[in-house]
Parts: sequence; structure tokens; C-alpha cells
Amino acid sequence: MHTELAWTDRRVPVALHDVAEQQPLIHCLTNIVVAQFTANVLLAVGASPAMVENAAESGPFAAVAAAVLVNLGTLSAEREVAMRSAALAAHEHGRPWVLDPVAVGALAHRTVFAAELLELHPTVVRGNASEVMSLAGSSVAGRGVDSLARSEEAVDAATALARARGCVVAVSGSVDYVTDGKDVVAVPGGSRLLTRITGTGCALGALVATFVAVENDALFAAAAASAVFKTAGARAARKDPLPGTFAVRLIDQLGALAGGAVGLAE
Amino acid sequence: MHTELAWTDRRVPVALHDVAEQQPLIHCLTNIVVAQFTANVLLAVGASPAMVENAAESGPFAAVAAAVLVNLGTLSAEREVAMRSAALAAHEHGRPWVLDPVAVGALAHRTVFAAELLELHPTVVRGNASEVMSLAGSSVAGRGVDSLARSEEAVDAATALARARGCVVAVSGSVDYVTDGKDVVAVPGGSRLLTRITGTGCALGALVATFVAVENDALFAAAAASAVFKTAGARAARKDPLPGTFAVRLIDQLGALAGGAVGLAE
Amino acid sequence: MHTELAWTDRRVPVALHDVAEQQPLIHCLTNIVVAQFTANVLLAVGASPAMVENAAESGPFAAVAAAVLVNLGTLSAEREVAMRSAALAAHEHGRPWVLDPVAVGALAHRTVFAAELLELHPTVVRGNASEVMSLAGSSVAGRGVDSLARSEEAVDAATALARARGCVVAVSGSVDYVTDGKDVVAVPGGSRLLTRITGTGCALGALVATFVAVENDALFAAAAASAVFKTAGARAARKDPLPGTFAVRLIDQLGALAGGAVGLAE
Repeated sequence: MHTELAWTDRRVPVALHDVAEQQPLIHCLTNIVVAQFTANVLLAVGASPAMVENAAESGPFAAVAAAVLVNLGTLSAEREVAMRSAALAAHEHGRPWVLDPVAVGALAHRTVFAAELLELHPTVVRGNASEVMSLAGSSVAGRGVDSLARSEEAVDAATALARARGCVVAVSGSVDYVTDGKDVVAVPGGSRLLTRITGTGCALGALVATFVAVENDALFAAAAASAVFKTAGARAARKDPLPGTFAVRLIDQLGALAGGAVGLAE
Repeated sequence: MHTELAWTDRRVPVALHDVAEQQPLIHCLTNIVVAQFTANVLLAVGASPAMVENAAESGPFAAVAAAVLVNLGTLSAEREVAMRSAALAAHEHGRPWVLDPVAVGALAHRTVFAAELLELHPTVVRGNASEVMSLAGSSVAGRGVDSLARSEEAVDAATALARARGCVVAVSGSVDYVTDGKDVVAVPGGSRLLTRITGTGCALGALVATFVAVENDALFAAAAASAVFKTAGARAARKDPLPGTFAVRLIDQLGALAGGAVGLAE
Repeated sequence: MHTELAWTDRRVPVALHDVAEQQPLIHCLTNIVVAQFTANVLLAVGASPAMVENAAESGPFAAVAAAVLVNLGTLSAEREVAMRSAALAAHEHGRPWVLDPVAVGALAHRTVFAAELLELHPTVVRGNASEVMSLAGSSVAGRGVDSLARSEEAVDAATALARARGCVVAVSGSVDYVTDGKDVVAVPGGSRLLTRITGTGCALGALVATFVAVENDALFAAAAASAVFKTAGARAARKDPLPGTFAVRLIDQLGALAGGAVGLAE
């Protein structure tokens, strides 16, 4: 039995309102493909993104950020050092941090690196089905950055991983599933167009970091981030736009949801 | 005498249909300016882009990708190592790979590096006139990332380069020319607006990699990629939009062409 | 007493026309978040951006560029070496260069690095109030990449910094202030939406580099860049668009202003 969470649950816009009010500083160690899109997603909901990914600064910055995102998309030798420092500093200073294990399972080097990062107590792991199954020790592999499995196939792996690591695990797909190892929250909705533009999974990971920065309940926070993102995606997909227009509207709809959430709570 | 290729040649939408159907995994080693745009161009036509550019992973990943793109835009010491590994692995494992020699000729370091990569058997070299003339040993130089020569001025250099290296060479310009050292295919069309936004040449290089992944005939594949890109550009330029809007419509029109190609072949 | 500069001052469109006519080659050492947006901003006004940020090439390239931008957004060990080389080469070869001290004051490492770059004779320093106050030796700190102070609070610090370094200092905010240590030019206008998308401050820094490439008077050049950017921002914000649409229209309006400026001077 799963519970479901959607935008219509009043707690979701309230959480989004908290983001706009607190403007949490989100330290993103992410990749060259999605850095701009991720920043614009966070700005649209009122958060304050800052990409600091060098070895000299990532530890000190993680220590003062409201939350940290570690996304393995385009690793480099220096980014790996910076990611280790950021994860360590976040944990030591009680800052929530999110691991987005892009393409783990498909590439041996990052599979080892992700396992190492898992030891540093992420608050939430967000990935697609292949990535989560790989992290949980399954042998199912992805293909590049895309999953070959459906999200529902990864729910057991996610639950096992969450329990083993004491973290929340979010699996993205046509339905997103979020679990703390005990409860599972399903977030339906969204749009197939979300898979036709780059960076939507990565930006969702950053949005999860944003929500765990303002909400103590990481299970709810990660599910609320999914609900906001899927709602914006569904609204952006109305009248079935082509992918360039869809990407613009997705940012627009996140801005509109955030504006509405501010209005709601006033 | 050149032959011409255009979208109206039925083989072009069929090739685009093959892309959408096979969803080839395209390993892109590219630059920080165009990575997002490149990914969105490939996703719009149904390919599966993955940017892996670190020294530890680029060799193994190139060995399993459907095709590899090596774009010299924003080199770094680590990217250069990764590019060498990827080109080597691609050649050893029989994967087609495309060299995009951004700004070669204008900068000594990358001119030497590009010459080294040329030894690793690229399937296609795609550049502007200045870059191709420089690679072919001419002394004509570019200016930053822009060509100072017109594409027709580089046809002889392209032909000589293709013959010397046993590869296909594509010269981009107001008319694109593609040659295997014997035949030359001209691809007219497009729009001047394609030069008013960043990343169109680089994204075309990635599209060439996508088409060589699904077509054995590299000469036709590179020309077909040009025909698709120029057609999308011409359609996006209708009513002469301003450049921000043009960039959005260019992705839209690639998506529309791909959707139409899928429809055509069903 | 400040003088004011606005688009309606005929010298501003004339300067923009000079950009479109000279198409200055702008060497940008910038960050992974804003590289694409920055390139599109410069292309929209007719400049020729080229991002070259590796240690082997940045010195030689700065020596031949029309102007150089050094933006500290996403530092890496190699980018720091490249930035030092570029600043040195620009100064030695009489090329104007612009320092954009992103997040200086908030992070110790880059604060030290920026102080070192300040010794290399930047033509213009452009930052937000927190960054400029930090560079000038004030203890007021920023928060991530955002300023906690208003631009008017930094005018004295900017004036002192300009005088001490013999450069022009531009402070961005709801009013931009530009000073050479003696005169202060205020540039009002713009839109609050400019703070809701990423990269507007960074792109303005690149636009300042573009204008100092074609105008000998760096005080006027930096103020003119602000006037152009704020005017495009205000026009893009008409009818209060959501942030995704605003980002597209901002590029559009820069293109429209540049086209109009070309028309004006013909």
C-alpha cells in the first residue's frame, strides 16, 4: 500500500510557500549540461542556487548552505574531490544533502564513487529506476543516462536501500516513488515531454534539495518536490507543445506555482 | 559537379525515422557553452545523448556508445586526456566518431591537438571553412570560433583532407558541403539566424554523430544531418523571429521534423 | 551628485551600433552556469564571443581578443591558472579586461584570488554591492551569489576601489552605479525579473567587456552596457511574463535594440 501525494494536498503549496519565504541557499555541485536549467528551476520557485564545485571551496560552502546537491552527471577529477568535501562538510554541519547518481550502474568508475558517497550519509538519494537498482546492489544496468527499467520495478530496491542507509530514496519515472524504507509515497502525473528535454531529472534532484532545506520531514519534502515538478510539467504540456516551447513553459509554470503558493498562504 | 541533398529527398526523413526508432546512445565530449543545447537537439530528434568527459570513464563509455562526438570548444587538461581515450576506444571498437575542431587554426595548442586526434581515424570531421582549411594544412586562419572564409572556398581543402585521412569532411556555411574525397554533396538552405545564436555548429556536429550511428554510409549520413538541421533552421526562421525566440523554435522544429518522419514511415 | 545615463541618450545606441559594426571578439573565461546565456547575449548585440578557459590557450588568446572577461563563478584549479594568464596577457598587450568577482566576500578562497587578480590591472570591475564592498575592504558579506546590500550602499566603496586601483567599478542593482573614482554615473531602470533568472549579472559583465572593446572611455562604456541591458530587461518584462518566457524575450529585446541601433546610425 502506497499513499499518494499531489499538488492538491494543501501541505504541498505550503511547503512551496516556505521555499519562497526562506529563499534557501542551495549549494549545487552539478554538471555542465544542466547547470543553467537547474539554476533557473530553483530561481523560479524562489530559492537561491549557487554552483560551487572546486576542491578549495566546496567544503566551506557546504557547511553554510541550507542544503547541498551532489549530481554525478559530468564528473572530473577535481569535481570528485569537491563532492567528497561537500558531502563530508554537509554531514558534519548538519546540512541535508542529496545524491543524484547519474548513470550509476552504466559506468564502473562512478558506480564505485557513488558507493563511496553513500557512506557519507546523504539525506535523500534521487535517481531513475536503473540508478537506484544499481545502488541497491541489483545487477540491472542503465543505458547512458536513461533507465531501462520502470520506476515501479525499483520500489523494492529503493526501500531496501533506504533501510540499509537510513536515508530517503526517490525513484523518478512516470510515477515517482519516495520511501524512507518503511512508508512509500507515490507521486503520479507529469508528462512524457519531461523525458524529451535534458535536465529534468537533475533539476528535480535540486528541487528535492530545496525542499529538504525548508522541511524537516525528508520523506514529505522529497515527495512534495516531485509533486510540484510533475504539476508544473503537466501544466507546461497542455496543448502538447513541441520540446523547445515546453522547456520554456516548464520554468514558467514553476514560477506560476510558486507565485500562487505565495498568494495562497498570505 | 556537386550533387545536392535536401529534406525533400525521401531518404532524409527515413534516416531521421531510423534515429527516432533506434534512439542511438551518443557519447558527447563537448563544451560548457553548448552542452545543454546539444543535448536538447539530440533529444528533439529522439536520440539519447550522454555527456561523459572525464579521463576515467570516456574510454569505456565510447566503447559501448553508438557514436562519439569530440568537440574541442572548451578544452581542459582533463578533457584532452578523455578525448584521446574516447577516440582511441571508438576506433578500436568500431564505433563511428566525429571530430569538431572548434577554433582550430586560430589557436596553436588546439591545432596541434586536432592534428593528433586526426591520427585516430575520425569517421567524420565537421567544421567551418577556416577550421577545415587549417586542418587540411592551409594557412588561412579563423577568428575566435567564427570562420573568415566562406564554405565554398573550403571545398578543395575538404576534399584533400577527406582523401588524405580516409574520412568524410563536412564544411558548414550558408551552403554545407560534405565530401568523402571523391563525391561532394551540397546542402543549401538554412537561415542567417543560425549564426546569431550560439551552438548551432556544435549541435550539428552532434547530429552528424547521431546520423552516422544509424547509417553506414557516412557521406550520406553527414549530409542528411545537415539537411535536417538546415530545414529546421529555415522553418524556425519563418516570420524572421528575434534570436531568443528563434533558438526555442529551432528545437521545436527539430521535434516536429522527427515527429513527421516517424509519421511518414509508419 | 550623480549623472544619469539611459538608452535615450543618443550616445548609447551609437555605441551599440559600433558593437554591431566592429563585431569585437570577446574572450570569456566564465562559468558553467551562464556560458550559453552569455554567448547568446553577446551574439544578440552582434559581438563575437569565444570561451577559451584552459591554461594552455588563455594567455595567447587574450593577447589577440578585443576584450577579455574573467568571471569567477565556477572556479577550478585549471580555470584559475587560465584566468591569471589571460589577465596578465590582456594587460601586457593593452587589451581591456573586466573582472566579475562572483561571490567574493562569501568565500575565502576566491576573495584571496580576486585580490590577486586586482593587481593585474582590470579595466572594469563589475559586481553586486556585496562583492564590490568586499573587494574594497569592507567587512559586509554576501550570501552565495546574491548581494545582501543595495547598490546605493556600495557607491562609496566603489568610488574608493576605483580610485585605489585606477579602474572603473560598476555596481549592479535596482539602480546600477558606475564610477571611475571621480564621477559616478547612475543607470536606473531594468526589471525585478532580471533577478529571477540566472546569469543576468554575469551576462552584463560580458556586455561591459564588449562595450570597452569598442569605446575608449571605460566609464561611459560600462554605463552604456548597463543602459542597454536594463532597457532590454524593461522591455522584456512588459506584461509581466513568467521567468522562462522572460529569459527568451531578454535575448529577443537585446537583438531588437541592436537591430534598431544599426538602423539608427545608417
